[in-house]
Amino acid sequence: MSLARGVSLVGAGMTRFHHRIHQDKSGRELFNEAAEKAIESVDGGIDRRDLQAVFVGYFTPEAYEHQGHIGAQVTDWLGLCPVSGWRTESACASSAYAFLTGVLAIASGLYDVVLVGGVEKMTELSTEQVTDALSMAACDDYELPPGATFPGLYALLAQAYFKKYGATWEQLQAVPIKSHHNGSLNSNAQFQEEIIDIGNRWGARRGLSFKDNMEVLKSTLNRMVAYPLRLFDCCPISDGAATAILAADDVAKKYTDTPIKIKGVSATTDNLAIHDRTSLTSLRATVEAGKRAFSMAGMKPKDVDVADVHDCFTIAEILAIEDLGFFKRGEGIRAVEEGITSLKGDIPINTDGGLKCKGHPAGATGVGMIHEIWKQLRGEAGKRQISNAEIGLLHNVGGDGASCVVSIFSR
Amino acid sequence: MSLARGVSLVGAGMTRFHHRIHQDKSGRELFNEAAEKAIESVDGGIDRRDLQAVFVGYFTPEAYEHQGHIGAQVTDWLGLCPVSGWRTESACASSAYAFLTGVLAIASGLYDVVLVGGVEKMTELSTEQVTDALSMAACDDYELPPGATFPGLYALLAQAYFKKYGATWEQLQAVPIKSHHNGSLNSNAQFQEEIIDIGNRWGARRGLSFKDNMEVLKSTLNRMVAYPLRLFDCCPISDGAATAILAADDVAKKYTDTPIKIKGVSATTDNLAIHDRTSLTSLRATVEAGKRAFSMAGMKPKDVDVADVHDCFTIAEILAIEDLGFFKRGEGIRAVEEGITSLKGDIPINTDGGLKCKGHPAGATGVGMIHEIWKQLRGEAGKRQISNAEIGLLHNVGGDGASCVVSIFSR
Repeated sequence: MSLARGVSLVGAGMTRFHHRIHQDKSGRELFNEAAEKAIESVDGGIDRRDLQAVFVGYFTPEAYEHQGHIGAQVTDWLGLCPVSGWRTESACASSAYAFLTGVLAIASGLYDVVLVGGVEKMTELSTEQVTDALSMAACDDYELPPGATFPGLYALLAQAYFKKYGATWEQLQAVPIKSHHNGSLNSNAQFQEEIIDIGNRWGARRGLSFKDNMEVLKSTLNRMVAYPLRLFDCCPISDGAATAILAADDVAKKYTDTPIKIKGVSATTDNLAIHDRTSLTSLRATVEAGKRAFSMAGMKPKDVDVADVHDCFTIAEILAIEDLGFFKRGEGIRAVEEGITSLKGDIPINTDGGLKCKGHPAGATGVGMIHEIWKQLRGEAGKRQISNAEIGLLHNVGGDGASCVVSIFSR
Repeated sequence: MSLARGVSLVGAGMTRFHHRIHQDKSGRELFNEAAEKAIESVDGGIDRRDLQAVFVGYFTPEAYEHQGHIGAQVTDWLGLCPVSGWRTESACASSAYAFLTGVLAIASGLYDVVLVGGVEKMTELSTEQVTDALSMAACDDYELPPGATFPGLYALLAQAYFKKYGATWEQLQAVPIKSHHNGSLNSNAQFQEEIIDIGNRWGARRGLSFKDNMEVLKSTLNRMVAYPLRLFDCCPISDGAATAILAADDVAKKYTDTPIKIKGVSATTDNLAIHDRTSLTSLRATVEAGKRAFSMAGMKPKDVDVADVHDCFTIAEILAIEDLGFFKRGEGIRAVEEGITSLKGDIPINTDGGLKCKGHPAGATGVGMIHEIWKQLRGEAGKRQISNAEIGLLHNVGGDGASCVVSIFSR
C-alpha cells in the first residue's frame, strides 16, 4: 500500500492550549490564530491564496458554540472562500482525520497545498456540560444509560491492566511526573509546572510542603476521580487550536528545504462500546493502525525516534506504547518508570507534555501532536529537543479507542 | 486537474426517506439498512469484507441522538471493525463530502473499495428543536441573534430574485408541481402524491374539491411559512439514510460490467453569513463548484442528461439551474414553467422528486441524490426513467450556500 503521490508537512502552528486565557475568543478565532502561525512558520513564506482547501476537526461545536458547518465557517474567516473546506469528526481524534483527509486530497491529485487543523472551545460550559459533550464519544445506547463517563471507562482499563500484570497505581505515576517535566519546557502547554512545584504552591496556603512529586501525588491535592484514577491521571479541559500546512512532495520544495515527509498513514475503528471488545488491556484500533502505518512506511517501532501518543488518562499512554510495539505487553509501565520514555531515554514519548500537560481541546489534539513532531524533527523544540530526531510518530485516539489514527513522519 | 486514479460507483442503496415510518429506528439502524441495500445492489455481488473504509455524513447527531463518533459507530454496527471510518460534516451537504472523501481516498491509492453515505434521524425532536438544530448551518454569531431561520434566509433570496427579474411566486410553483409529479413515481420518496391529489384528500374533510394543482397551492392548505415562501415551497423534515459503494476503476470491473464513472468532483465554500455575500440571486459556491467540476470532466452544461440539484426551497432549485449554467440568469424560472426540466424535457431536474418530495434527512441527502443518478444512468429508474441518460450531475449545498459539492457521473 502506498500513496499515489508523496505528501509533506511544510508548516505548523498552534495556539497555547489553556483553560482560561482564551475565554474571550470563539473557536473560529482560535483556529485563525493557529492558521496564521502555520502560515508564518513556512520557511520560504507562503501566500495564503496557495491554500486550496481547509480540513478542520472539531468534535462537538454544536454543544460548545451552537454552530455546525464548521468547514465553511473557518474557511470564510480565513478569507479563503471559495476554496473548499469541510469538517471531520471522530471524537478526540477529529483533527487527525482532518490531517488524514488532507493527505488523501493531495495524494489523489485534487489539490497541491492544503491547510489541516482542529479546534475545540470547551471552557464556556460547566464541567457537567463538558462531561456530557465528551460522553457523546462513547455509546449513547449502552454505555451512558448505566452512568459511564470517560474517567470511569479508562479506570476500567487501568484496573484490568493492574490485575493482569500485577502493576500498581504508584508505578503509573511515572507518567504524569514525566509529562509535567516535559510540559514545564513547553510554552504552548496548559500546565508548565513540575508536580512538586504545583504541590508546594497549593500547600503554601495550607502550611504544607512536599519533598518530591510522589508525596504530592499521594496528598489530598490529587483527589480521586474514578478509582483508581486520580486528578493527575486525567488530562484537563482546554480551549485551543492547531493547524499544519501540507504540500505535495513535488510542490513542497517551493516552500522549504526541510519538508517533513509523511511516510505512513493509517486509520482504524473498534467496537464503540467497550463491552463488545475482546480485550481491556489493549486497544485493537491502535494495534491495527500501528501495524498498517509501519507497513506503509517500511519501518518498525525501533526506527522511531520520538512519538506523541494519546494519553487522555495515564493508563492510555501505557496501553499506547505497548499497542504500538515500543514495549512488550505488561512492560510499558516499567519502561516509563525507568525513564526509557523520558526526553533522554531511548524512545521519548510525549515530549510536549502530552494531553496531560499540554492540554486536550479535543478537536485540536491530533494536529497539536503533529505540531510537536514537526518541531522535534526540525530541531526546533528548544529545551525539550531530543537529539537526532529523524523519525516521529503520531498516535491519536477517538473516545476510549473506537477510532485511531497513526502516522509516521520523517525528516 | 485530474485524479491520480479513476473512481467508479459500483453500488447504491437507500432507505425510503420519511417523517413517520422510521420512528422506531436509530440513525445507525437506518445507515445499516441503506448499506445492506447498497451491498445487495452490486451486480456481481460483494463480500462486505472488501469494504476498506466507511465515510459517513451526519449533520447534527449531537442534537438528534446525543451521539458523536459516528464513523466508528456505523462501522462497528456494520461489523466492519477494524476498517477505518469517519464522519464528514458540512451541514446539509454532509454526505456529499463523505462521497468526496471516499473518492479522494481511492484516488490517493490508500483504499480500493469504500462505502460512503449519510444519515439523519430528525423526527424525534419537536419542530422547534429541529429548526434549532438546522440553524447551526447558519452563522450563530450574526444570523441567529436577529432571528433568522432557513425559510427566512431563502425567502430573502426569493424576494431578491423576484425583484431583479420581475418573476412571481405563481411562476415559482412550477417547481413543486414538477417535484410532486416526479415524487409520485418514486417509491423511496417521502411524498408520493401529485399536489392536486393531496389537495383533494385534504379538501374532502372540508367539503372542498380542487380542479388543478395551482388551485391547491393558492388555498389555505398551502400556508405561509416565510413570505413569499409557503408550505409547498419548503422541503420536509425527514428520517433516512443513503449509501454508495465506490471502487477504483481498475477494481470496479470485478463487481460490475456497468460501473458509473466519476468524471468530475469539486467542492467550494462561500461566506457563512448571507450579509457578507456579493449576490442574493446567485450562490457563488455553486457557480465555482460547477465550473471546476465541468472543467475536470471536460464537459459543458449542455452535455448533462439528468441532474439532481439542491432544492431545500423552491427558489434554491431556480438558483441552482442558473448557477450551474443550464439556463441564463433570470431564465431558470421560465424554463421550469415550460417543462424543460420535466422528465420529458431537455434537461430533467430532480427526477426523484427532489428534496421537496423525496425528503431531506440532511446528512443523507447528498448520497441520496447520487442514488438517483445511479438509477437513471443504469436505466433502473422505472416510471421516472428518462431516455438515453449517459451523463448525470449531483449538486448538494450546505446551509444557504456556504458550502457546495458538484460531481459529474458518466455511464
